[in-house]
Amino acid sequence: MTATRIAIVGVGKIARDQHIPAIEASPDLTLTATASRNGQVDGIPAYPDIDAMLAAEPDLQAISLCQPPSARHAAARSAIAAGKHVFLEKPPGATLSDVEDLCAAADAAGVVLFASWHSRWAAAVEPARDWLASRTIRSVEIAWKEDVRKWHPGQDWIWQPGGFGVFDPGINALSILTRILSGPVRLEAATMEVPANRASPIAAELTMRSAGGAPIHAVFDWRQTGPQSWDISVETDGGTLVLADGGNRLTIDGAPHDVPADREYPALYDRFAKLIAEGRSDVDLAPLTLVADAFMVGARVTTDAFED
Amino acid sequence: MTATRIAIVGVGKIARDQHIPAIEASPDLTLTATASRNGQVDGIPAYPDIDAMLAAEPDLQAISLCQPPSARHAAARSAIAAGKHVFLEKPPGATLSDVEDLCAAADAAGVVLFASWHSRWAAAVEPARDWLASRTIRSVEIAWKEDVRKWHPGQDWIWQPGGFGVFDPGINALSILTRILSGPVRLEAATMEVPANRASPIAAELTMRSAGGAPIHAVFDWRQTGPQSWDISVETDGGTLVLADGGNRLTIDGAPHDVPADREYPALYDRFAKLIAEGRSDVDLAPLTLVADAFMVGARVTTDAFED
Repeated sequence: MTATRIAIVGVGKIARDQHIPAIEASPDLTLTATASRNGQVDGIPAYPDIDAMLAAEPDLQAISLCQPPSARHAAARSAIAAGKHVFLEKPPGATLSDVEDLCAAADAAGVVLFASWHSRWAAAVEPARDWLASRTIRSVEIAWKEDVRKWHPGQDWIWQPGGFGVFDPGINALSILTRILSGPVRLEAATMEVPANRASPIAAELTMRSAGGAPIHAVFDWRQTGPQSWDISVETDGGTLVLADGGNRLTIDGAPHDVPADREYPALYDRFAKLIAEGRSDVDLAPLTLVADAFMVGARVTTDAFED
Repeated sequence: MTATRIAIVGVGKIARDQHIPAIEASPDLTLTATASRNGQVDGIPAYPDIDAMLAAEPDLQAISLCQPPSARHAAARSAIAAGKHVFLEKPPGATLSDVEDLCAAADAAGVVLFASWHSRWAAAVEPARDWLASRTIRSVEIAWKEDVRKWHPGQDWIWQPGGFGVFDPGINALSILTRILSGPVRLEAATMEVPANRASPIAAELTMRSAGGAPIHAVFDWRQTGPQSWDISVETDGGTLVLADGGNRLTIDGAPHDVPADREYPALYDRFAKLIAEGRSDVDLAPLTLVADAFMVGARVTTDAFED
């Protein structure tokens, strides 16, 4: 089988660090073009925007969208209308209804839509899911605390309405949570701390419940200096499982558990190639649904102004 | 076929005005019990809460939940666990994940779940849908303006986080909108006016788009004194359709269009009885999804304090 001709839209930091190396290492995919206002890749045809690229490269088969979520819907619709398969970075849209529109459009066009959740492919996530499958879950505690100045320096869009704020990293925790537990996770209550000079939360606390009735508590905080935390701890009838480092490290009752080598983005692109081969879409909205629920029912508390 | 034995939970104004008369008029249903902190129905066994009722009335087959949305999830879970079919007043839950949890639980238990949207059963909605089906839609304008002091006097819960605010009536407009248009409706932007002393919006403006690309503009306002407006106007290539009075009156290019007699709640219960007979659930989350999306990406503007 010949490799699928794929293009990247949005050649920014995440594309350079993760997407491009993963595509270049894949036997199933060939990077054929890029579309980006600024970035490009040596030796690969570069276009200023997706529509110019689609017009000039009719043989493209798939498009990976790596730009911020607010611009993603229009680009995805263009790609689908041109008959291309679409890979969406997380979150798959600015809104749930954006993504549902894309699902309907992709189905009608007969193309594959893949809503990727990269944290779900961190090395220890599947081992954690397997270990939990035969245990009864008693409670879950999530701490997702990082320094926004380090990870999003000067990024104004994350603070605008629709910019998600601290849910931008927090949704990664929710994507892992909804993968390692069986059955739906339900949001019961939320509190969001919003800086006086911003529209989006800098911190959030979520009270959730598993389908089996176990309480789930999550704290997301963007004001963490020093060591950063991306940890999920699960108490079960068979011991305590801790997923640390954003899903990359696993301990059971304090003892380290072997996990396979980390290949988050390569695994994502393997999955996309498999979906294309099978003609099947994969769009799980559970993480974004929990975020939307938190905004809908969450209490908002004004906190100190945040200056970058 | 004998009539299905149904109970009502939450005997308040909406139950007395609508649900009880509709059930009493139905040949398919028999009102068998009620559970409510205060209200009851003459001649029908009354219980203080759903769990007491379920224990005392094992022959019940279906439960209609008419209490405020925040209490509905726990009651629905109890009813499903007891093997009863469940009718949910709108909105079907406080959150989307609440409802998804109920869907999974109902499927597992083999019972029917019906998320009712009563405004969709207003007399002119189906005629409007039929008329629009063969037209190209150019734009939609929604004005849903009412006096909160008249319709929700002293109801504190609607102003709390999760109380929906003006989306409590606004979701009725969204339920009609998503019924009369074909394909998904997508939220693009929203602005919410929130009183300085409250957590939920008193007014909202939504910018949406149809699957076909037509702009949709909605204004919800709870500060309307004098005449109240619940109107949806649709410009098409074949003329202008106006659905007025909350879906009950239809004009095309200004000319009144005959509609069947109004039987909103009786039609809802006919539908529920049919779903039970067919063993099929009906849960459309599109209206609640648009509300969650509006809260997630909407800009919040503080406005005058609201005193009841």
